[in-house]
Amino acid sequence: MYDLIIIGSGPAGLSAAVYAKRAGLKVLVLEKNPMSGGQVLNTYEVDNYLGLPGINGFDLGMKFREHADKMGAEFMEAEVAGVETDTELSESGEKGHVVKTDKGDFPTKTLLIATGASYAKLGIPGEEELAGMGVSYCATCDGAFFKNRVAAVVGGGDVAAEDAVFLARICKKVYLVHRRDELRAAKILQDKVKELPNIEILWNTVAEAIQGEGHVTGMEIRNVVSGEKSSLAVDGVFIAVGIRPNSEVFQGIAECDGNGYLIAGEDCATTVPGIYAAGDIRKKNLRQVITAVADGANAIAGIQNYLL
Amino acid sequence: MYDLIIIGSGPAGLSAAVYAKRAGLKVLVLEKNPMSGGQVLNTYEVDNYLGLPGINGFDLGMKFREHADKMGAEFMEAEVAGVETDTELSESGEKGHVVKTDKGDFPTKTLLIATGASYAKLGIPGEEELAGMGVSYCATCDGAFFKNRVAAVVGGGDVAAEDAVFLARICKKVYLVHRRDELRAAKILQDKVKELPNIEILWNTVAEAIQGEGHVTGMEIRNVVSGEKSSLAVDGVFIAVGIRPNSEVFQGIAECDGNGYLIAGEDCATTVPGIYAAGDIRKKNLRQVITAVADGANAIAGIQNYLL
Repeated sequence: MYDLIIIGSGPAGLSAAVYAKRAGLKVLVLEKNPMSGGQVLNTYEVDNYLGLPGINGFDLGMKFREHADKMGAEFMEAEVAGVETDTELSESGEKGHVVKTDKGDFPTKTLLIATGASYAKLGIPGEEELAGMGVSYCATCDGAFFKNRVAAVVGGGDVAAEDAVFLARICKKVYLVHRRDELRAAKILQDKVKELPNIEILWNTVAEAIQGEGHVTGMEIRNVVSGEKSSLAVDGVFIAVGIRPNSEVFQGIAECDGNGYLIAGEDCATTVPGIYAAGDIRKKNLRQVITAVADGANAIAGIQNYLL
Repeated sequence: MYDLIIIGSGPAGLSAAVYAKRAGLKVLVLEKNPMSGGQVLNTYEVDNYLGLPGINGFDLGMKFREHADKMGAEFMEAEVAGVETDTELSESGEKGHVVKTDKGDFPTKTLLIATGASYAKLGIPGEEELAGMGVSYCATCDGAFFKNRVAAVVGGGDVAAEDAVFLARICKKVYLVHRRDELRAAKILQDKVKELPNIEILWNTVAEAIQGEGHVTGMEIRNVVSGEKSSLAVDGVFIAVGIRPNSEVFQGIAECDGNGYLIAGEDCATTVPGIYAAGDIRKKNLRQVITAVADGANAIAGIQNYLL
C-alpha cells in the first residue's frame, strides 16, 4: 500500500518524486516509457530552466531522473489501464485508489497524474528529421534561438498568433502560414499580427515539406486556392496546430475541460479528493519545464495535507 | 522607457529576467543588495531544486545570476522608495508606472515586484551563527537532512504544527517548543501533533540559546511558569515564529492580504493592471525556490499579453 503513486516521469512527476521522498512518503513512480524525462528528452536545447542555461534536453531529463534516483524514488515501467477510485483498501476500512496496470494492480492512498501532453504534428517530410534543429512546437521555449533570423509559424489559432507576435520581437521576419483565409485567433491577437510590420501572413497556404540538412533552411508551401507551389527561405518553423493532453485513461475519473485537460488549480488538486494533477496535463496558462517542476512541489504539499 | 522593471533579484526576479530577455523585452532589474540570489544565498544546501541535487545555496544563487547575465539582463543596485502608478509616460499620452529609487526615477510600461519575504528570528545566541548548520526556517526545505535524528520546532501556529508533523515522518524524535499552554494551530493539526508518538510538546517553554560548534548539538530552554532551565539534545532547530513579506514600499499600490502579501494568482497579476508579483511576496501556498522560479516565468507570460 503506497502513500502516493505518481503516473508519469517527466519534469512534474520527477519533481514530485523528489519532494515526496524528502517528505518521507512511500511513493511509486509508474512510467510508460523506458526512459524518464518526458518531452524534454526530445528537445535540442533548453535555455530557460534557471541555473542550467543552454542545456541539452536529453541531459536535462537525465539530471532530473538522477535527482529522483538519488532520493531513493522507486520506479516501475508499466502502462496504466485505469484507476478504480474510492475503494476500500484494507480490512480496517481505509479508502483509497487502485491503479490498474499491465504489471498488476497497485493500491494507494493518493494519486498524482503527470502524464503530460503531446503536440499535434503536421506529418510532412522533414518535420521529424529536423525536430529540435529548427522545427519547434514551442515559441516560448525556442524563439530566442532565432534572434534576427527568419521564422515561419504554421497555424491560425490563438497559439499560432501569439507565437507570431512573440517571434516578431525577436526575429527579423516572421511568416504566418495558415490554410484558411482568416485566423481563428482572438481579435486582439489578429489585430496585433496585422499591425506588426515584420509579420507576413500567407493565407490559404499549407506547408508541404521542411527542408534542410542538420538545420532548417526552408519550407515548401502550396497555395490551396491557386494550387501554386513555392519555396520559403526560413531558419525556423514553429508548428502551432494543437496540443493534446495524455489524459484518455483518466477521462471520467476527475473533471476535465473541453480539451481533456484535468481541472486543477495551482495546488494541483483535481475534483476528486486525493487525486492530483501536475504538469502539462493540468489546465493552466503556461506549459514549461519550470512550471511543471513547480507543480510537482505544489502537488506534494497538498498531498501531505491530505494525508494528515 | 522600459517594457518592464523587475524589483528584486532572487529566484523569481532572475527567472523573470531570463524569460523577459528571451522574449525580447527591454527590462531592468533593480536589486537592493550588492549580490543577487535572495534568501537562497544564506542556505547551506538546497536539495529539492530538480536537476541540481545537494547544491550549496550560494552556488545556486550564483548560477541563477550567471544565467540572467548570459541572457544580457541589465542590473542596477538601487533601493526603491516608491512607485507612481498610472502616470503619463510620454508625449503621446502612453501610460505606465514610474519607479522612484535612490539612483533616480525610471519609467516603465509594466512592473514585477519580486522582493521576497523574511523569516522572523528568535534573536537568541547561536541562532545566527548556526543558521544553515542545523538552524533552519523551512522544514520543507531542510527536513530531509535530519533523517532518523532529533529535531526541535519552535512556535505554536499552523506552520510550527505542520513542520512538526512533517518532521515526525523523517526524524526519530521531534520536540515542539511553545511558549504558551496551547497551540494556535488549526484543530486538525493539533490533533495530529498530539496523536503522533514521536512528537513531544514542551508547553510554556522558550528557547534561550542554540548550542553547537559547526553544527547544532542542543538548545537551552526555560519553562516560563516554573522558571526552570534545562538543556535539550537536538540535531536541528526549526524556527517557525513567522514570515513577513518585504512589501512595505508597495502597501497601497496593489491589494495585499492581512499579512502584507500581494494578492495575485498563479498568473502573478496583482489588482493593478500592468503590475505583477512573483515569488515569496505573493500570496501563495508554498514558498520554495522552484515555485518562485516558476512564478517568474508565469509573470512574463502575463506581461507579454499585457503589452500586446
